[in-house]
Amino acid sequence: MANRVDEILSWYGADHPGVLKNLRWMLESGRLGGSGKMVMLPVDQGFEHGPGRSFARNAPGYDPFYHFQLAIDAGCNAYAAPLGFLEAGARQFAGRIPTILKLNNSDSLYSSADPRPAVTGSVEDALRLGCAAVGFTIYPGSSERNEMYGEFREIAEDAKAAGLAVVLWSYPRGAGLSKEGETAIDIIAYAAQIAAQLGAHIIKVKPPTELIEQDAARKVYEAEDIQIATLPDRVRHVIQSAFDGRRIVIFSGGAARGTDDVLEEVRGIAEGGGFGSIMGRNAFQRPKSEAIELLHTVMDIHRAQL
Amino acid sequence: MANRVDEILSWYGADHPGVLKNLRWMLESGRLGGSGKMVMLPVDQGFEHGPGRSFARNAPGYDPFYHFQLAIDAGCNAYAAPLGFLEAGARQFAGRIPTILKLNNSDSLYSSADPRPAVTGSVEDALRLGCAAVGFTIYPGSSERNEMYGEFREIAEDAKAAGLAVVLWSYPRGAGLSKEGETAIDIIAYAAQIAAQLGAHIIKVKPPTELIEQDAARKVYEAEDIQIATLPDRVRHVIQSAFDGRRIVIFSGGAARGTDDVLEEVRGIAEGGGFGSIMGRNAFQRPKSEAIELLHTVMDIHRAQL
Amino acid sequence: MANRVDEILSWYGADHPGVLKNLRWMLESGRLGGSGKMVMLPVDQGFEHGPGRSFARNAPGYDPFYHFQLAIDAGCNAYAAPLGFLEAGARQFAGRIPTILKLNNSDSLYSSADPRPAVTGSVEDALRLGCAAVGFTIYPGSSERNEMYGEFREIAEDAKAAGLAVVLWSYPRGAGLSKEGETAIDIIAYAAQIAAQLGAHIIKVKPPTELIEQDAARKVYEAEDIQIATLPDRVRHVIQSAFDGRRIVIFSGGAARGTDDVLEEVRGIAEGGGFGSIMGRNAFQRPKSEAIELLHTVMDIHRAQL
Amino acid sequence: MANRVDEILSWYGADHPGVLKNLRWMLESGRLGGSGKMVMLPVDQGFEHGPGRSFARNAPGYDPFYHFQLAIDAGCNAYAAPLGFLEAGARQFAGRIPTILKLNNSDSLYSSADPRPAVTGSVEDALRLGCAAVGFTIYPGSSERNEMYGEFREIAEDAKAAGLAVVLWSYPRGAGLSKEGETAIDIIAYAAQIAAQLGAHIIKVKPPTELIEQDAARKVYEAEDIQIATLPDRVRHVIQSAFDGRRIVIFSGGAARGTDDVLEEVRGIAEGGGFGSIMGRNAFQRPKSEAIELLHTVMDIHRAQL
Amino acid sequence: MANRVDEILSWYGADHPGVLKNLRWMLESGRLGGSGKMVMLPVDQGFEHGPGRSFARNAPGYDPFYHFQLAIDAGCNAYAAPLGFLEAGARQFAGRIPTILKLNNSDSLYSSADPRPAVTGSVEDALRLGCAAVGFTIYPGSSERNEMYGEFREIAEDAKAAGLAVVLWSYPRGAGLSKEGETAIDIIAYAAQIAAQLGAHIIKVKPPTELIEQDAARKVYEAEDIQIATLPDRVRHVIQSAFDGRRIVIFSGGAARGTDDVLEEVRGIAEGGGFGSIMGRNAFQRPKSEAIELLHTVMDIHRAQL
Repeated sequence: MANRVDEILSWYGADHPGVLKNLRWMLESGRLGGSGKMVMLPVDQGFEHGPGRSFARNAPGYDPFYHFQLAIDAGCNAYAAPLGFLEAGARQFAGRIPTILKLNNSDSLYSSADPRPAVTGSVEDALRLGCAAVGFTIYPGSSERNEMYGEFREIAEDAKAAGLAVVLWSYPRGAGLSKEGETAIDIIAYAAQIAAQLGAHIIKVKPPTELIEQDAARKVYEAEDIQIATLPDRVRHVIQSAFDGRRIVIFSGGAARGTDDVLEEVRGIAEGGGFGSIMGRNAFQRPKSEAIELLHTVMDIHRAQL
Repeated sequence: MANRVDEILSWYGADHPGVLKNLRWMLESGRLGGSGKMVMLPVDQGFEHGPGRSFARNAPGYDPFYHFQLAIDAGCNAYAAPLGFLEAGARQFAGRIPTILKLNNSDSLYSSADPRPAVTGSVEDALRLGCAAVGFTIYPGSSERNEMYGEFREIAEDAKAAGLAVVLWSYPRGAGLSKEGETAIDIIAYAAQIAAQLGAHIIKVKPPTELIEQDAARKVYEAEDIQIATLPDRVRHVIQSAFDGRRIVIFSGGAARGTDDVLEEVRGIAEGGGFGSIMGRNAFQRPKSEAIELLHTVMDIHRAQL
Repeated sequence: MANRVDEILSWYGADHPGVLKNLRWMLESGRLGGSGKMVMLPVDQGFEHGPGRSFARNAPGYDPFYHFQLAIDAGCNAYAAPLGFLEAGARQFAGRIPTILKLNNSDSLYSSADPRPAVTGSVEDALRLGCAAVGFTIYPGSSERNEMYGEFREIAEDAKAAGLAVVLWSYPRGAGLSKEGETAIDIIAYAAQIAAQLGAHIIKVKPPTELIEQDAARKVYEAEDIQIATLPDRVRHVIQSAFDGRRIVIFSGGAARGTDDVLEEVRGIAEGGGFGSIMGRNAFQRPKSEAIELLHTVMDIHRAQL
Repeated sequence: MANRVDEILSWYGADHPGVLKNLRWMLESGRLGGSGKMVMLPVDQGFEHGPGRSFARNAPGYDPFYHFQLAIDAGCNAYAAPLGFLEAGARQFAGRIPTILKLNNSDSLYSSADPRPAVTGSVEDALRLGCAAVGFTIYPGSSERNEMYGEFREIAEDAKAAGLAVVLWSYPRGAGLSKEGETAIDIIAYAAQIAAQLGAHIIKVKPPTELIEQDAARKVYEAEDIQIATLPDRVRHVIQSAFDGRRIVIFSGGAARGTDDVLEEVRGIAEGGGFGSIMGRNAFQRPKSEAIELLHTVMDIHRAQL
Repeated sequence: MANRVDEILSWYGADHPGVLKNLRWMLESGRLGGSGKMVMLPVDQGFEHGPGRSFARNAPGYDPFYHFQLAIDAGCNAYAAPLGFLEAGARQFAGRIPTILKLNNSDSLYSSADPRPAVTGSVEDALRLGCAAVGFTIYPGSSERNEMYGEFREIAEDAKAAGLAVVLWSYPRGAGLSKEGETAIDIIAYAAQIAAQLGAHIIKVKPPTELIEQDAARKVYEAEDIQIATLPDRVRHVIQSAFDGRRIVIFSGGAARGTDDVLEEVRGIAEGGGFGSIMGRNAFQRPKSEAIELLHTVMDIHRAQL
């Protein structure tokens, strides 16, 4: 299995060994360690949606220690959270699981047509907290997109210089797109390409739908007969759009849903060659044992594709 | 009692000992020293509402020395004020009581739907003035919220590096919220969560009402049967929302009112597990002896919960 | 008399001796030297109103040397001007009179509802030119107020670190205020408080009128029976509003007027405990001998209050 | 032939030898090496138009290695791409072909009347990746033009200090121009002049049409009888407008078209004295062998003019 | 004659000897060297108006070498141009004539009611290119004026510290002024005063007309009977408005016109005490021999006033 990790690391020849060390740490951690597949636990919903909406269903989740332990117990490759949640447990869990400091976040107390998250942490914070990586979110399609790309550019440059891996959530939204278009196949593929071109090591996108949002894209998709009928087809196209498979692309799950729906989607992602899943609300809003069971099943699905 | 302070300090494992020293200084000062409870005196109303509205009722309050001495005589854990007020007495009162330099402030000579305070001091000022902490105010719900979060992020990073504690006033207001919603339980809990995620050591919020402002929150509050009928219930939920009790959350009092009203509210806060009170106008706008008597009663109520 | 200067300097305990040296230089210069009272000559009208409107009435004033010499010959405590005027004579008059470099200025070739001056000089310029202090203007009431406060904050921090005194012109204006309200007693008192809280050593305000601008202030002024019927009453209230007399507050004169009007106003300022006057157009737009005579009379009025 | 390269380098007397080294590297690479003519491969369409629209026609182009190899195999002078594409192959292809890091890029998920690209890379990135030059795009005619010029100014200053050559894409567009005017002869000549005055070493413009956009220009073009009837005439005028031939000016091709159209345009450019062509979509959207054949033909046309 | 240069240099007592050296270099260069009068050649019209409109009338002017040589052959005191033009000849003409690097420029491809030039060069560029001075343009009357003043402030501070002289083009324009008011006598005098107060060593303004733009100025001009009937009167008033003759004020010529008109205006400027002329289009748009003849005549007119 180690060969697959070495192969993946070979794609990042522009980075110095300090970055490779942290990529390897994530790739070799947890139940999927060494497989080249990753399942991560992200918990930024307290900031994004508020504490009640995020943690009331499974109240132990109000406690920041809970999520560190859940990620460890479930055998995740990494745990991602904003500054406060990581600060709260950084000393107790130092080195026990790779952590990803989310450097920007949006709250739900004000909304605008052209969203942009607040910068809430720094590369220095990530170093101080012993993180393996920094995380950042961009909203392609927003009128503020260029400011986000510029913020990411500076952060990525600093993070790489400091030996941290860089994870980019590329979530299209804003005045340039229809609501349904946010997950259209052409848009998700484009979002993956932008993330890759901006220099992300690991890219997070949402599972794409069969919709094509932009006319200019539709012409080409039809003329070239790009296969997008099934989720595996679409995932395959997204992976291709992120440097033909030379970048790690992971898919997020979205709102909490039934177990069957979640697993069906994961199967499509895995079949299409996705590098893994990032699963937040569907994990931490269930009782811990159920969450671990679900995450193990997700991991098994990804491993089954090897 | 010292064990409680040690326990509280253990929550801040991401901070270096310099920060812990200043947190301990505040926790072990005054009549509540060592109890884990805190009562603070804040005096920024001269800047926020103007000198006449703030000090005419009790004219000795025009003098910056008055408030240092009031905080000391009443046995407060700390005294918080803007740059000018602290500069005026910093030498005379150096080391006699922990001080908190408020680094941003709003005046009342111009108002807008989306407020944002002016930055009026720096971490370097706080060090020069011998402060234990810096204070900052954010307005979640304002269109300018992200700029405030960003300013706070930089200040907090610098303050922590310099060994200063960081106190965050999280006061929802702005175009994203109704006027009544500013103190709704879901909003106050969310404000506490945001402050905690932004990395504050000590969080100041207003006592929450029974109102629920956001529909998305109401669904969860009802589905999960979150208890919010009484003030102790609501305070408990706010404390839970700030990392399940792993962050110091203090409640402010608001406009000057009758003694009975003030004390009833304090009892609710104390019963709900609040870490203490911050009391400005209700203290310095009374004659000094009355103010001390009131503050002592407030302290006794908090201590009675131990 | 020296005791009064020592007493005044004792109010600035947060500043290092370098700042005290420059405050003392201004307080001990000129005909009022050592009295604790100050009369200053400011000449920024060339920038603010244009050269013809400023200097044509008394044409020697086109020459920058004229104003240095006028301030010296009249025995002023200090001379304040923008960069160009100070650069033009800095070498010839080095050390002959304390100078204050005005670091921001507004011209009259464009006007807007929410004014904000241009930054036209730096702390480094003031050091290079041998100044005793830097001067800055804020417009409380303008939508741009926070930007001005922020600029001042940085300048004041740098100036204090470099041993320069900091003089703040606090002139309410902008969309938040009525035209008459700019000199209303509640607004002038508030402007003095803001300047003091922002950390100014010396505060310049305009003489207040009997008007009360804000309803929230009127309630308190009436309830607490604050005396504002006479100019001395109002000046007393403004001094009180600047830390109960612990900050130097000087009053400016405004547009050129008849000698009797000017002196009557100065008498009111002096009787109310004002620390002095800053007199520009009423001085440099008269023939030099008349200007000196007027300034001497103003100084005598202030001295008579001791 | 080397004399021509020496002659060209003599135009850059303000630059230090480190810059000349990289200019020489580009001028002496590939099939046109030493001739003073250049043909470059740019591949930023993945970011600019999306991955499907860019690479589906010739699917190997999804892979970043493909373009490095295409540029080498075709004997191009240099290969230009955004950060991600260069990072992906920088180690494998280090030193095998001069690379140009495009430092700003626009995506197609949001559009506005006054476009401005996002900054997506840095001079430090270019050094880290072993590039010969940095590339930048300005949009003269956009209300944001001054911000772009200012960004370029800083980047160019830093790049020159670091020994990197500076390539400027000067593409008029925005509210100041009609759609057709973007390639009008007066506008393209003006765009070349602006690029030269801003300090670019190599200037990229689009082939100009016979249209004159601005009335003030038309008067002079007619009065002075400037020849613009044929493409060679117009190219000659553009070269003249870039310091009378003292700056390298290369012409881009635009959208993918038929081979005959492409070659006819290249002939016009070559006949008019253009220094070369930059050809993206017309190259990488064809099968590799066809692309190489086309690029060789283009090179031959340019060489035939020597 | 040398005494006049010494006298002029004595006005710049705030500057260190490095600045005086460069002022002296310009004052002692060319046919007017040592006289205290200056005639300069500025060539920024390629950027400001486009290459065709600027150079087609006299096509050798497309070549940047042409203007260096023209300025030398005509015996100008200095040659001013943007970055690209100076870079193109800096090595060949190093030290042969004082050069002034124009640090900001406006193009004509986009226009707005409130103009502001782009910053296109730096103090470091000026040092690297061996310049005697930096040049900068402000537009008093524009809503963006304060940003320009602020940019100039920083540039001037850095330039003076580096020993470079500072030349300021003060050209009123923007929403605060009528079109005719841009050259009204009160506005030009005000523009000269602003430039002087901002710390310029050499001030460039346009020849003023007899119009008075602002009512507040008209009252004073009439009451004080300021003489503005003839061009010499008006020039005298402008010189007076720039510190009563203690700053070098040079007048520009504007659009290309007939020789007689040009010379008549120069006679008025010289008679009014102007320090010289800056002549661009009227020089470089004529055949070289004619241009030299014209410039010599202009120089003779200025010299005749000594």
